[in-house]
Amino acid sequence: LLSSIAEASQCSVKGLPLIRNISELPQDNYGRGGLSHITIAGSVMHGMKEVELWLQTFAPGSATPIHRHSCEEVFVVLKGSGTLYLATNSHEKHPGKPQEFKIYSNSTFHIPVNDAHQVWNTNEHEDLQILVVISRPPVKVFIYEDWFMPHTAAKLKFPYYWDEQCFQVPQKDEL
Amino acid sequence: LLSSIAEASQCSVKGLPLIRNISELPQDNYGRGGLSHITIAGSVMHGMKEVELWLQTFAPGSATPIHRHSCEEVFVVLKGSGTLYLATNSHEKHPGKPQEFKIYSNSTFHIPVNDAHQVWNTNEHEDLQILVVISRPPVKVFIYEDWFMPHTAAKLKFPYYWDEQCFQVPQKDEL
Ligand SMILES: [Zn+2]
Ligand SMILES: [Zn+2]
Repeated sequence: LLSSIAEASQCSVKGLPLIRNISELPQDNYGRGGLSHITIAGSVMHGMKEVELWLQTFAPGSATPIHRHSCEEVFVVLKGSGTLYLATNSHEKHPGKPQEFKIYSNSTFHIPVNDAHQVWNTNEHEDLQILVVISRPPVKVFIYEDWFMPHTAAKLKFPYYWDEQCFQVPQKDEL
Repeated sequence: LLSSIAEASQCSVKGLPLIRNISELPQDNYGRGGLSHITIAGSVMHGMKEVELWLQTFAPGSATPIHRHSCEEVFVVLKGSGTLYLATNSHEKHPGKPQEFKIYSNSTFHIPVNDAHQVWNTNEHEDLQILVVISRPPVKVFIYEDWFMPHTAAKLKFPYYWDEQCFQVPQKDEL
C-alpha cells in the first residue's frame, strides 16, 4: 500500500505544489544502469503538452542508447564531461560511423532533427549531469543496437514515457 | 564594420559550432534594466522551431514585465531567490491581484497557459539566475502595465524575438 501511494504520487498532476524543489523530485534509473532520471516538467506528471524538461545524471561509462527522433532536443551540461556521438548522414540505410564531439560543463548543443545520436559519459572520474529539453511530448524514438543497424531494424518505442508505470496504476486501488 | 560583424555573428545560424560554451554566448539587456539575457537555443540564431531555451540573470530589484502568453513556459532557478507573481483568474476583464510564490535556488515551476505572471528578484543581496524553456517560438506576448489593466488594453508584442535586430541587418553590407 505504501508503495502504491508512493507510485501514485509520482503520477498525479493534481496536488503538486506550483514551486517544486528539484532535489525532492522522484528519480529513477528506469532500468538503465548508471542513469538517474528526474522529470522536472513532464506530460504525464505535470500536464505539459508542448515541452518536457529532464535532469539526467550518467555515472562514468554510462550512456544513452543510440537513437533518433523527430522532435527537437536541447542539452545543457551542468556537471562533468563526455562525448556526443552524432551521425548526420541518416539519409543512408543506417546511421553509419558517427562524428565525435567533446561536451563539457556549461556547454550546450541541440540535435538536428532525425539524426541518430548518443550521449556518453566518457569521463571515468566524474558523473555527467545534463538538462534535456524536448518538444512535442511524448517522444517517438527509434533505438539502434549499433551504428550500422539498418533504419528498418531500429526498434520503435512510442510513446516513450519515463513515467509510463503511471498508466499501470489501477484506477481502483480497492479492487 | 567591427560592430556589424559582431552583430551578424549573433544572428547567423550558419558557422556556429555544434557544441557551444554558454559563457561565451552573446548577452544583452535588450533595453531592460538589471537584465542579462542569453539565448542558449533560439529560433533566429539556431533555427529552433519548437522550443527555445534562455539563460536570464536579474539584478536585485529587477523583474520581467507583467505578461501572459499561450505557449508553455518552464523555469529552473539556478541561483538566488525571488518571487513569482501569478494571477490565475485571467478569465476576468483584467489579471487582478496575483498570488505570490517564493522561488529559490534549485526550484522549478511552469506557468499555466495564458495566466498573467511576473518573476521578480526580490532578494536585495543576490542576482537571480533562471533557465527558461518556452514552446512554439516566437513568443506572442501580451504585456500589462499593472495587474488591473484590462486585457483589452494589454500591449501585444509579436513576434517577441530577443534577437529581433537580426532582421534589421542589411542583406548586402556593401551597399
Ligand atoms: Zn535524443
Ligand atoms: Zn512568461
